[in-house]
Amino acid sequence: MELKQIAYILTDFDEKFGIPRQSGRVPELIGRIVFLPEYAVKEAVRGIEDFTHLWLIFDFDKAHRDTFTPTVRPPRLGGNKKMGVFATRSPYRPNPIGLSSVKLIKVDYDTKYGLSLLVSGVDLLNNTPIYDIKPYLPSSDCHVDAKGGFADEFTDYALNVDFNDDLLKIIPKDKQCALIKCLQDDPRPSYQTDDRVYTMKYINYDVKFSVYGDTLKVIDVKIL
Amino acid sequence: MELKQIAYILTDFDEKFGIPRQSGRVPELIGRIVFLPEYAVKEAVRGIEDFTHLWLIFDFDKAHRDTFTPTVRPPRLGGNKKMGVFATRSPYRPNPIGLSSVKLIKVDYDTKYGLSLLVSGVDLLNNTPIYDIKPYLPSSDCHVDAKGGFADEFTDYALNVDFNDDLLKIIPKDKQCALIKCLQDDPRPSYQTDDRVYTMKYINYDVKFSVYGDTLKVIDVKIL
Repeated sequence: MELKQIAYILTDFDEKFGIPRQSGRVPELIGRIVFLPEYAVKEAVRGIEDFTHLWLIFDFDKAHRDTFTPTVRPPRLGGNKKMGVFATRSPYRPNPIGLSSVKLIKVDYDTKYGLSLLVSGVDLLNNTPIYDIKPYLPSSDCHVDAKGGFADEFTDYALNVDFNDDLLKIIPKDKQCALIKCLQDDPRPSYQTDDRVYTMKYINYDVKFSVYGDTLKVIDVKIL
Repeated sequence: MELKQIAYILTDFDEKFGIPRQSGRVPELIGRIVFLPEYAVKEAVRGIEDFTHLWLIFDFDKAHRDTFTPTVRPPRLGGNKKMGVFATRSPYRPNPIGLSSVKLIKVDYDTKYGLSLLVSGVDLLNNTPIYDIKPYLPSSDCHVDAKGGFADEFTDYALNVDFNDDLLKIIPKDKQCALIKCLQDDPRPSYQTDDRVYTMKYINYDVKFSVYGDTLKVIDVKIL
Protein backbone atom coordinates (compact mmCIF):
# COMPACT_ATOMS: atom_id res chain seq x y z
CA MET A 1 0.00 0.00 0.00
CA GLU A 2 1.19 3.48 -0.81
CA LEU A 3 0.61 5.92 2.04
CA LYS A 4 -0.45 9.48 1.25
CA GLN A 5 0.62 12.25 3.59
CA ILE A 6 -2.46 14.00 5.00
CA ALA A 7 -0.82 16.44 7.41
CA TYR A 8 2.43 17.39 9.14
CA ILE A 9 3.13 18.42 12.70
CA LEU A 10 4.96 21.52 13.92
CA THR A 11 6.93 20.93 17.11
CA ASP A 12 9.83 22.51 19.01
CA PHE A 13 12.33 19.86 17.94
CA ASP A 14 14.31 20.05 14.72
CA GLU A 15 16.60 17.29 15.94
CA LYS A 16 15.90 13.91 17.49
CA PHE A 17 18.17 14.44 20.50
CA GLY A 18 16.07 15.54 23.47
CA ILE A 19 12.65 14.44 22.23
CA PRO A 20 10.80 12.49 24.93
CA ARG A 21 11.00 8.76 24.32
CA GLN A 22 7.23 8.33 24.29
CA SER A 23 4.22 10.54 23.79
CA GLY A 24 2.63 11.98 26.92
CA ARG A 25 5.86 11.95 28.95
CA VAL A 26 6.06 15.74 28.75
CA PRO A 27 2.45 16.98 28.71
CA GLU A 28 3.64 20.58 28.29
CA LEU A 29 5.09 19.91 24.84
CA ILE A 30 2.68 21.41 22.34
CA GLY A 31 2.44 20.59 18.65
CA ARG A 32 0.29 21.80 15.80
CA ILE A 33 -1.01 19.34 13.24
CA VAL A 34 -1.50 21.16 9.94
CA PHE A 35 -3.61 19.44 7.29
CA LEU A 36 -2.41 19.46 3.71
CA PRO A 37 -4.74 21.49 1.44
CA GLU A 38 -6.54 18.44 0.01
CA TYR A 39 -7.53 17.28 3.53
CA ALA A 40 -8.05 20.69 5.14
CA VAL A 41 -11.80 20.26 5.07
CA LYS A 42 -13.79 21.18 8.19
CA GLU A 43 -16.15 18.24 7.70
CA ALA A 44 -13.24 15.80 8.00
CA VAL A 45 -12.81 16.65 11.71
CA ARG A 46 -16.51 17.03 12.58
CA GLY A 47 -17.04 15.60 16.06
CA ILE A 48 -13.34 15.32 16.90
CA GLU A 49 -13.73 17.74 19.85
CA ASP A 50 -15.76 15.01 21.60
CA PHE A 51 -12.53 13.09 22.13
CA THR A 52 -9.85 14.09 24.61
CA HIS A 53 -7.05 12.07 22.97
CA LEU A 54 -6.02 11.19 19.43
CA TRP A 55 -3.80 8.64 17.77
CA LEU A 56 -1.28 9.83 15.23
CA ILE A 57 0.15 7.45 12.68
CA PHE A 58 3.23 9.07 11.29
CA ASP A 59 6.41 8.63 9.31
CA PHE A 60 9.70 7.99 11.14
CA ASP A 61 11.10 9.90 8.19
CA LYS A 62 14.65 10.03 9.53
CA ALA A 63 14.76 6.27 10.08
CA HIS A 64 14.21 4.82 6.62
CA ARG A 65 16.38 1.80 5.88
CA ASP A 66 16.54 -0.54 2.93
CA THR A 67 17.38 -3.70 4.86
CA PHE A 68 15.51 -5.54 7.61
CA THR A 69 17.32 -5.82 10.93
CA PRO A 70 15.38 -8.11 13.29
CA THR A 71 16.81 -6.67 16.52
CA VAL A 72 17.40 -3.23 17.99
CA ARG A 73 19.28 -1.99 21.07
CA PRO A 74 16.89 0.10 23.18
CA PRO A 75 18.83 3.04 24.68
CA ARG A 76 17.05 2.59 28.03
CA LEU A 77 18.57 -0.88 28.32
CA GLY A 78 22.04 0.56 28.15
CA GLY A 79 22.41 0.04 24.41
CA ASN A 80 24.00 -3.38 24.79
CA LYS A 81 20.94 -5.61 25.00
CA LYS A 82 19.28 -6.69 21.78
CA MET A 83 15.49 -6.84 21.63
CA GLY A 84 13.28 -7.99 18.78
CA VAL A 85 12.11 -5.03 16.73
CA PHE A 86 8.46 -6.09 17.22
CA ALA A 87 8.99 -6.00 20.99
CA THR A 88 10.02 -2.33 20.83
CA ARG A 89 8.73 1.01 19.58
CA SER A 90 12.02 1.70 17.82
CA PRO A 91 11.78 3.75 14.61
CA TYR A 92 14.02 1.26 12.82
CA ARG A 93 11.37 -1.24 11.73
CA PRO A 94 10.32 -2.91 8.46
CA ASN A 95 7.73 -0.18 7.93
CA PRO A 96 9.01 2.98 9.63
CA ILE A 97 5.61 4.12 10.85
CA GLY A 98 5.13 5.46 14.34
CA LEU A 99 2.18 5.50 16.69
CA SER A 100 1.68 8.24 19.29
CA SER A 101 -1.24 9.32 21.39
CA VAL A 102 -1.62 13.02 22.08
CA LYS A 103 -4.11 15.16 23.91
CA LEU A 104 -6.38 17.34 21.78
CA ILE A 105 -6.32 20.95 22.98
CA LYS A 106 -8.37 22.51 20.23
CA VAL A 107 -9.33 22.56 16.59
CA ASP A 108 -8.25 25.75 14.82
CA TYR A 109 -10.18 26.82 11.78
CA ASP A 110 -9.26 29.67 9.50
CA THR A 111 -5.92 30.64 11.02
CA LYS A 112 -2.86 31.15 8.85
CA TYR A 113 -2.44 27.36 8.98
CA GLY A 114 -5.81 26.68 7.44
CA LEU A 115 -7.27 23.74 9.33
CA SER A 116 -5.07 22.57 12.21
CA LEU A 117 -5.22 20.73 15.52
CA LEU A 118 -3.40 21.95 18.61
CA VAL A 119 -2.23 18.93 20.64
CA SER A 120 -0.05 18.27 23.68
CA GLY A 121 2.29 15.56 24.92
CA VAL A 122 4.02 15.28 21.55
CA ASP A 123 7.15 13.23 20.90
CA LEU A 124 7.67 14.03 17.23
CA LEU A 125 10.23 15.86 15.17
CA ASN A 126 9.20 19.16 13.65
CA ASN A 127 7.59 18.63 10.21
CA THR A 128 6.98 14.91 10.68
CA PRO A 129 4.60 13.69 7.96
CA ILE A 130 1.31 12.32 9.30
CA TYR A 131 -0.67 9.59 7.56
CA ASP A 132 -3.66 9.17 9.81
CA ILE A 133 -5.44 10.66 12.81
CA LYS A 134 -7.86 8.48 14.77
CA PRO A 135 -9.84 9.12 17.93
CA TYR A 136 -8.62 7.40 21.09
CA LEU A 137 -11.42 5.09 22.24
CA PRO A 138 -11.04 4.35 25.95
CA SER A 139 -13.26 1.26 25.77
CA SER A 140 -10.96 -0.49 23.31
CA ASP A 141 -7.62 1.34 23.63
CA CYS A 142 -7.18 1.69 27.38
CA HIS A 143 -6.10 -1.64 28.88
CA VAL A 144 -5.68 -1.05 32.58
CA ASP A 145 -4.60 -4.68 33.02
CA ALA A 146 -1.78 -4.44 30.46
CA LYS A 147 1.80 -5.11 31.54
CA GLY A 148 4.57 -3.22 29.84
CA GLY A 149 7.69 -5.32 29.92
CA PHE A 150 11.10 -3.72 30.09
CA ALA A 151 10.03 -0.46 28.48
CA ASP A 152 7.96 0.49 31.50
CA GLU A 153 10.62 -0.12 34.12
CA PHE A 154 12.11 3.32 33.62
CA THR A 155 9.04 5.53 33.71
CA ASP A 156 9.74 6.94 37.17
CA TYR A 157 13.37 7.71 36.41
CA ALA A 158 14.19 11.45 36.51
CA LEU A 159 17.34 13.57 36.78
CA ASN A 160 17.64 16.65 38.95
CA VAL A 161 18.02 19.64 36.65
CA ASP A 162 20.35 22.46 37.69
CA PHE A 163 19.25 25.34 35.42
CA ASN A 164 20.73 28.70 36.38
CA ASP A 165 18.11 31.50 36.31
CA ASP A 166 20.20 33.72 34.01
CA LEU A 167 20.30 30.93 31.45
CA LEU A 168 16.70 29.84 31.92
CA LYS A 169 15.28 33.31 31.26
CA ILE A 170 16.75 33.24 27.75
CA ILE A 171 14.02 30.68 26.97
CA PRO A 172 10.48 32.11 26.57
CA LYS A 173 8.49 31.65 29.78
CA ASP A 174 5.84 29.41 28.25
CA LYS A 175 8.52 27.08 26.87
CA GLN A 176 10.61 26.68 30.05
CA CYS A 177 8.62 24.00 31.83
CA ALA A 178 8.57 21.63 28.85
CA LEU A 179 12.32 22.04 28.38
CA ILE A 180 13.06 21.26 32.03
CA LYS A 181 10.90 18.14 31.87
CA CYS A 182 12.68 16.98 28.71
CA LEU A 183 16.00 17.40 30.51
CA GLN A 184 14.71 15.56 33.61
CA ASP A 185 13.84 12.66 31.32
CA ASP A 186 17.55 12.32 30.47
CA PRO A 187 18.12 12.76 26.75
CA ARG A 188 21.47 10.91 26.83
CA PRO A 189 21.90 7.50 25.32
CA SER A 190 21.95 5.39 28.48
CA TYR A 191 25.28 3.82 27.66
CA GLN A 192 27.05 7.17 28.03
CA THR A 193 27.71 7.98 31.65
CA ASP A 194 30.72 10.30 31.50
CA ASP A 195 30.61 14.09 31.96
CA ARG A 196 30.84 15.09 28.29
CA VAL A 197 29.02 18.21 27.07
CA TYR A 198 25.80 17.57 25.13
CA THR A 199 24.01 20.05 22.91
CA MET A 200 20.26 19.80 22.58
CA LYS A 201 18.44 21.92 20.03
CA TYR A 202 15.14 23.23 21.38
CA ILE A 203 13.07 25.64 19.28
CA ASN A 204 15.77 28.08 18.14
CA TYR A 205 18.09 27.54 21.09
CA ASP A 206 21.15 25.41 21.63
CA VAL A 207 21.03 24.08 25.19
CA LYS A 208 24.38 22.75 26.42
CA PHE A 209 24.55 20.47 29.47
CA SER A 210 26.57 17.84 31.28
CA VAL A 211 25.42 15.17 33.69
CA TYR A 212 27.12 14.47 37.02
CA GLY A 213 25.59 11.50 38.80
CA ASP A 214 21.88 12.21 39.14
CA THR A 215 22.14 15.88 38.26
CA LEU A 216 21.97 17.46 34.84
CA LYS A 217 23.66 20.88 34.82
CA VAL A 218 22.81 23.33 32.05
CA ILE A 219 26.04 25.05 31.02
CA ASP A 220 24.95 27.40 28.28
CA VAL A 221 21.93 28.53 26.24
CA LYS A 222 22.50 30.16 22.87
CA ILE A 223 19.98 31.71 20.51
CA LEU A 224 20.50 30.34 17.01
CA MET B 1 5.81 5.71 1.77
CA GLU B 2 5.25 2.23 0.40
CA LEU B 3 4.18 -0.24 3.08
CA LYS B 4 5.49 -3.80 2.98
CA GLN B 5 3.33 -6.59 4.33
CA ILE B 6 5.13 -8.36 7.17
CA ALA B 7 2.43 -10.82 8.26
CA TYR B 8 -1.22 -11.79 7.92
CA ILE B 9 -3.77 -12.83 10.50
CA LEU B 10 -5.95 -15.95 10.47
CA THR B 11 -9.37 -15.36 12.06
CA ASP B 12 -12.81 -16.95 12.05
CA PHE B 13 -14.32 -14.29 9.79
CA ASP B 14 -14.22 -14.47 6.01
CA GLU B 15 -16.81 -11.72 5.79
CA LYS B 16 -17.10 -8.35 7.48
CA PHE B 17 -20.65 -8.90 8.77
CA GLY B 18 -20.52 -10.03 12.39
CA ILE B 19 -16.99 -8.91 13.24
CA PRO B 20 -16.94 -7.01 16.55
CA ARG B 21 -16.78 -3.29 15.96
CA GLN B 22 -13.60 -2.83 17.99
CA SER B 23 -10.80 -5.04 19.21
CA GLY B 24 -11.19 -6.53 22.68
CA ARG B 25 -15.00 -6.51 22.63
CA VAL B 26 -15.05 -10.29 22.30
CA PRO B 27 -12.00 -11.53 24.24
CA GLU B 28 -12.77 -15.15 23.21
CA LEU B 29 -12.09 -14.43 19.53
CA ILE B 30 -8.69 -15.91 18.75
CA GLY B 31 -6.45 -15.05 15.83
CA ARG B 32 -3.11 -16.26 14.62
CA ILE B 33 -0.60 -13.77 13.20
CA VAL B 34 1.62 -15.55 10.71
CA PHE B 35 4.84 -13.81 9.68
CA LEU B 36 5.82 -13.81 6.03
CA PRO B 37 9.01 -15.82 5.40
CA GLU B 38 11.28 -12.76 5.23
CA TYR B 39 10.18 -11.63 8.71
CA ALA B 40 9.72 -15.06 10.31
CA VAL B 41 12.89 -14.64 12.32
CA LYS B 42 12.85 -15.60 16.01
CA GLU B 43 15.09 -12.66 16.92
CA ALA B 44 12.48 -10.21 15.60
CA VAL B 45 10.09 -11.09 18.45
CA ARG B 46 12.69 -11.50 21.19
CA GLY B 47 11.22 -10.09 24.40
CA ILE B 48 7.67 -9.81 23.08
CA GLU B 49 6.38 -12.25 25.74
CA ASP B 50 7.11 -9.56 28.33
CA PHE B 51 4.10 -7.65 27.01
CA THR B 52 0.50 -8.65 27.59
CA HIS B 53 -0.94 -6.61 24.71
CA LEU B 54 0.14 -5.69 21.19
CA TRP B 55 -0.80 -3.11 18.61
CA LEU B 56 -1.52 -4.28 15.11
CA ILE B 57 -1.29 -1.86 12.21
CA PHE B 58 -3.11 -3.47 9.33
CA ASP B 59 -4.66 -3.00 5.93
CA PHE B 60 -8.39 -2.36 5.64
CA ASP B 61 -7.95 -4.25 2.42
CA LYS B 62 -11.66 -4.39 1.58
CA ALA B 63 -12.05 -0.62 2.01
CA HIS B 64 -9.69 0.85 -0.57
CA ARG B 65 -11.12 3.90 -2.36
CA ASP B 66 -9.61 6.27 -4.87
CA THR B 67 -11.38 9.40 -3.69
CA PHE B 68 -11.33 11.24 -0.38
CA THR B 69 -14.68 11.45 1.40
CA PRO B 70 -14.39 13.73 4.45
CA THR B 71 -17.35 12.28 6.35
CA VAL B 72 -18.65 8.82 7.23
CA ARG B 73 -21.92 7.55 8.75
CA PRO B 74 -21.08 5.44 11.80
CA PRO B 75 -23.50 2.47 11.98
CA ARG B 76 -23.88 2.90 15.75
CA LEU B 77 -25.32 6.36 15.16
CA GLY B 78 -28.10 4.88 13.08
CA GLY B 79 -26.35 5.49 9.78
CA ASN B 80 -27.89 8.90 9.27
CA LYS B 81 -25.46 11.14 11.16
CA LYS B 82 -22.30 12.25 9.39
CA MET B 83 -19.06 12.39 11.35
CA GLY B 84 -15.65 13.56 10.20
CA VAL B 85 -13.56 10.62 9.11
CA PHE B 86 -10.77 11.65 11.52
CA ALA B 87 -13.29 11.54 14.39
CA THR B 88 -14.05 7.86 13.66
CA ARG B 89 -12.28 4.55 13.30
CA SER B 90 -14.07 3.88 10.01
CA PRO B 91 -12.08 1.86 7.46
CA TYR B 92 -12.98 4.36 4.74
CA ARG B 93 -10.14 6.86 5.31
CA PRO B 94 -7.48 8.55 3.16
CA ASN B 95 -5.02 5.82 4.13
CA PRO B 96 -7.03 2.65 4.82
CA ILE B 97 -4.85 1.49 7.69
CA GLY B 98 -6.37 0.13 10.87
CA LEU B 99 -5.20 0.05 14.46
CA SER B 100 -6.21 -2.70 16.87
CA SER B 101 -4.92 -3.83 20.22
CA VAL B 102 -5.00 -7.52 20.97
CA LYS B 103 -3.90 -9.69 23.86
CA LEU B 104 -0.84 -11.85 23.30
CA ILE B 105 -1.52 -15.48 24.24
CA LYS B 106 1.71 -17.01 23.06
CA VAL B 107 4.51 -17.04 20.54
CA ASP B 108 4.60 -20.21 18.45
CA TYR B 109 7.90 -21.24 16.96
CA ASP B 110 8.40 -24.08 14.52
CA THR B 111 4.78 -25.05 13.95
CA LYS B 112 3.40 -25.53 10.46
CA TYR B 113 2.95 -21.76 10.38
CA GLY B 114 6.62 -21.04 10.91
CA LEU B 115 6.78 -18.11 13.34
CA SER B 116 3.35 -17.00 14.55
CA LEU B 117 1.66 -15.18 17.41
CA LEU B 118 -1.56 -16.42 18.97
CA VAL B 119 -3.66 -13.42 20.05
CA SER B 120 -7.15 -12.79 21.40
CA GLY B 121 -9.79 -10.09 21.17
CA VAL B 122 -9.40 -9.76 17.42
CA ASP B 123 -11.66 -7.71 15.17
CA LEU B 124 -10.08 -8.47 11.80
CA LEU B 125 -11.08 -10.31 8.66
CA ASN B 126 -9.36 -13.58 7.94
CA ASN B 127 -6.14 -13.02 5.95
CA THR B 128 -5.88 -9.30 6.71
CA PRO B 129 -2.40 -8.05 5.77
CA ILE B 130 -0.40 -6.70 8.72
CA TYR B 131 2.21 -3.98 8.37
CA ASP B 132 3.47 -3.57 11.90
CA ILE B 133 3.31 -5.10 15.37
CA LYS B 134 4.24 -2.94 18.35
CA PRO B 135 4.15 -3.62 22.06
CA TYR B 136 1.39 -1.92 24.04
CA LEU B 137 3.08 0.37 26.56
CA PRO B 138 0.71 1.08 29.46
CA SER B 139 2.66 4.16 30.54
CA SER B 140 2.07 5.95 27.26
CA ASP B 141 -0.87 4.12 25.66
CA CYS B 142 -3.29 3.74 28.56
CA HIS B 143 -5.04 7.06 29.24
CA VAL B 144 -7.42 6.43 32.09
CA ASP B 145 -8.56 10.06 31.88
CA ALA B 146 -9.52 9.85 28.21
CA LYS B 147 -13.10 10.52 27.14
CA GLY B 148 -14.46 8.62 24.21
CA GLY B 149 -17.07 10.75 22.50
CA PHE B 150 -20.06 9.18 20.79
CA ALA B 151 -18.25 5.94 20.01
CA ASP B 152 -18.20 4.94 23.66
CA GLU B 153 -21.87 5.54 24.37
CA PHE B 154 -22.82 2.11 23.08
CA THR B 155 -20.33 -0.12 24.83
CA ASP B 156 -22.83 -1.55 27.33
CA TYR B 157 -25.44 -2.33 24.70
CA ALA B 158 -26.15 -6.05 24.32
CA LEU B 159 -28.91 -8.20 22.82
CA ASN B 160 -30.34 -11.31 24.44
CA VAL B 161 -29.38 -14.29 22.28
CA ASP B 162 -31.87 -17.13 21.86
CA PHE B 163 -29.71 -19.98 20.55
CA ASN B 164 -31.45 -23.36 20.53
CA ASP B 165 -29.20 -26.16 21.87
CA ASP B 166 -29.67 -28.35 18.80
CA LEU B 167 -28.36 -25.54 16.63
CA LEU B 168 -25.62 -24.44 18.99
CA LYS B 169 -24.03 -27.89 19.21
CA ILE B 170 -23.35 -27.77 15.45
CA ILE B 171 -20.66 -25.21 16.32
CA PRO B 172 -17.48 -26.64 17.92
CA LYS B 173 -17.56 -26.23 21.71
CA ASP B 174 -14.52 -23.95 21.89
CA LYS B 175 -16.02 -21.59 19.31
CA GLN B 176 -19.50 -21.22 20.80
CA CYS B 177 -18.84 -18.56 23.39
CA ALA B 178 -17.17 -16.17 20.94
CA LEU B 179 -20.07 -16.56 18.49
CA ILE B 180 -22.68 -15.83 21.15
CA LYS B 181 -20.80 -12.70 22.21
CA CYS B 182 -20.57 -11.52 18.60
CA LEU B 183 -24.34 -11.96 18.29
CA GLN B 184 -24.96 -10.15 21.61
CA ASP B 185 -22.99 -7.23 20.17
CA ASP B 186 -25.65 -6.89 17.43
CA PRO B 187 -24.07 -7.28 14.01
CA ARG B 188 -26.93 -5.42 12.25
CA PRO B 189 -26.46 -2.01 10.78
CA SER B 190 -28.22 0.09 13.42
CA TYR B 191 -30.58 1.66 10.93
CA GLN B 192 -32.24 -1.72 10.26
CA THR B 193 -34.81 -2.58 12.91
CA ASP B 194 -37.21 -4.90 11.11
CA ASP B 195 -37.34 -8.69 11.54
CA ARG B 196 -35.55 -9.66 8.33
CA VAL B 197 -33.33 -12.76 8.28
CA TYR B 198 -29.57 -12.09 8.43
CA THR B 199 -26.83 -14.55 7.53
CA MET B 200 -23.51 -14.27 9.30
CA LYS B 201 -20.58 -16.38 8.14
CA TYR B 202 -18.56 -17.70 11.11
CA ILE B 203 -15.65 -20.08 10.46
CA ASN B 204 -17.28 -22.53 8.01
CA TYR B 205 -20.84 -22.03 9.21
CA ASP B 206 -23.70 -19.91 7.99
CA VAL B 207 -25.57 -18.61 11.04
CA LYS B 208 -29.06 -17.30 10.25
CA PHE B 209 -30.88 -15.06 12.69
CA SER B 210 -33.57 -12.44 13.13
CA VAL B 211 -33.96 -9.78 15.80
CA TYR B 212 -37.22 -9.12 17.63
CA GLY B 213 -36.94 -6.17 19.98
CA ASP B 214 -34.01 -6.87 22.31
CA THR B 215 -33.74 -10.54 21.40
CA LEU B 216 -31.71 -12.07 18.62
CA LYS B 217 -33.07 -15.50 17.66
CA VAL B 218 -30.83 -17.93 15.79
CA ILE B 219 -32.96 -19.66 13.15
CA ASP B 220 -30.52 -21.97 11.45
CA VAL B 221 -26.89 -23.06 11.41
CA LYS B 222 -25.47 -24.66 8.26
CA ILE B 223 -22.07 -26.21 7.66
CA LEU B 224 -20.59 -24.79 4.46
